Amino acid sequence: MVNETTRIFNASIGASAITASFELGLLEEIKSKGSLDIDSFSAENDLSVWSVTSILRVLHRFDIVAVSDDLKTATPATEFDDAYDNKGYFLWLIRGYGHLLHNLGTIVKENNCTTDGIGRDGRYIAMSGRDYGSRFVDPHFTEVMNAEPFKVAADLGCGSAERLMGLARANPEFRGVGVEVNKGAVDLARRAIDKAGLADRVQVVHFDVKNLVYQPEFEDVEVLFCFFMGHDLWPRPNCLRAFQSIRASFPSLKRFLFSDTYRSDLPVPGDTPIFTLGFEFTHDLMGQFIPNVAEWQELFEEAGWTCKAQHDLSIAYSAIFDLRPNPEASA
Amino acid sequence: MVNETTRIFNASIGASAITASFELGLLEEIKSKGSLDIDSFSAENDLSVWSVTSILRVLHRFDIVAVSDDLKTATPATEFDDAYDNKGYFLWLIRGYGHLLHNLGTIVKENNCTTDGIGRDGRYIAMSGRDYGSRFVDPHFTEVMNAEPFKVAADLGCGSAERLMGLARANPEFRGVGVEVNKGAVDLARRAIDKAGLADRVQVVHFDVKNLVYQPEFEDVEVLFCFFMGHDLWPRPNCLRAFQSIRASFPSLKRFLFSDTYRSDLPVPGDTPIFTLGFEFTHDLMGQFIPNVAEWQELFEEAGWTCKAQHDLSIAYSAIFDLRPNPEASA
Repeated sequence: MVNETTRIFNASIGASAITASFELGLLEEIKSKGSLDIDSFSAENDLSVWSVTSILRVLHRFDIVAVSDDLKTATPATEFDDAYDNKGYFLWLIRGYGHLLHNLGTIVKENNCTTDGIGRDGRYIAMSGRDYGSRFVDPHFTEVMNAEPFKVAADLGCGSAERLMGLARANPEFRGVGVEVNKGAVDLARRAIDKAGLADRVQVVHFDVKNLVYQPEFEDVEVLFCFFMGHDLWPRPNCLRAFQSIRASFPSLKRFLFSDTYRSDLPVPGDTPIFTLGFEFTHDLMGQFIPNVAEWQELFEEAGWTCKAQHDLSIAYSAIFDLRPNPEASA
Repeated sequence: MVNETTRIFNASIGASAITASFELGLLEEIKSKGSLDIDSFSAENDLSVWSVTSILRVLHRFDIVAVSDDLKTATPATEFDDAYDNKGYFLWLIRGYGHLLHNLGTIVKENNCTTDGIGRDGRYIAMSGRDYGSRFVDPHFTEVMNAEPFKVAADLGCGSAERLMGLARANPEFRGVGVEVNKGAVDLARRAIDKAGLADRVQVVHFDVKNLVYQPEFEDVEVLFCFFMGHDLWPRPNCLRAFQSIRASFPSLKRFLFSDTYRSDLPVPGDTPIFTLGFEFTHDLMGQFIPNVAEWQELFEEAGWTCKAQHDLSIAYSAIFDLRPNPEASA
């Protein structure tokens, strides 16, 4: 057995190898075919055999794959399925926050701990979100959403509006409205909606969720979604105002399916599940507060929402809160 | 207990935190004073309290430090001494090879696995070498070197010629000659030697160890050093020629104290000591062969050297080989 410091040292090489093997398609090849022929895979993908082999041998050391003695073939080993399922988190951490992990000392020295200063790579954050979102969020969410029928929904922070377009494709009676603060994302979403021929049923409005006011497009919205951005609305007074405004802006609303990751409050020293430490550290570093469940629940109530249920997601310390406008609360 | 994938994920955040805490002086402060006052240390060093706290809390999770409940003070915890002793390795990996760890997938895709392409940061490699060199190499080396008195030594790949200058300062009869291929390093070394008033006793010649030929400066050299660059002389035919040339170029030589890290051949899956995986992976990735001890020993013999002793260093799989020119070997 080696000590903790050594394990930390070695693991940061392992994390890089998992991430690269995801990006290079090594994990997918092994998953789908049951084994990877190193020579032919490298040739087909114009990769150097020794680079591919060196990455697979690191994975072998962590018992994720087994490389044959003749270095020709890689097959799944004990930890393979787990690494495969969690590969999106590695893309999130190593590609999304790799610049930060690599330059942390300098970034802190230069007081650059801001969203821009830490060099977060949004492309990889989005890409990884799609991988672990489809795995750990979407199945739960679809089930919760479909428990009560609806025809009109809004997505707060809709990004590329993929979710609304998917719902529109699946149900010809569905109408959706996306709310997005990023103008580039709004334009992209609108073009995609036009191209998909869904412009009569899916709209995107350019608005900041932090300061929402009633729009005619919101009139018939029955269900509201919001994914993994609620913590950005804090500090508390700002978030409280935002949740109050949301309630006031959607007159026909029945449900607000609010998904987010909350603070774990896990004791130290000690392990955390995957994702949690990365999520909490990157926010702590920038001085961004992450509320825990109790803090969220208090805020929901004070803002005029009743939390009917909390559906835990397979992302650790993450849930869908099924919120209902409380008719007795003051506006 | 969390699984291996999670441990790998979390540890890559831990590695970044250890590295940054070294660079920011947090480890040194805790080591020298027994505790760190977060507010005053941050103020004195113009660092944000929450950034410093977030790093210390990551170290707390790994039981390296303990942060008080009021978040005011950090003290050493179970793993502190080990992290402190090994901090140079983290600087080596995270700052020296951080660009590679972060961008591995892209670098391999673009067939950029060369010394330049992987974006190795030589400043940090050198800086970290000084930290772990002073800890894990110098004490052993001094003992081995002093076992047999000498007056004239040469250092192959002398870099900044610090070692030769140190010997010259310690012993007024000492004369030294450095051999260095990097012209920038040669100029720097010569200026430093001039400045130290040692130009009459320490010289540096601009030469590639790979193709050494006799120089008048080599005439009286009794002892030769070479630190952690021997593996760069491979593939074998090139290294064999280099070791033969070295023997032929120093007519008065008694000892060649040759230090290097050799291939571990550790079984997979399984742990490696600190440094080993990083050293072997970065070389494997570039297709650079690292010989094991048996391969070195065969080469020493064939090149006309007798290995009188192998002194293991505290850097894993690293040793000082005490080589003697074999008078019976052909040139």
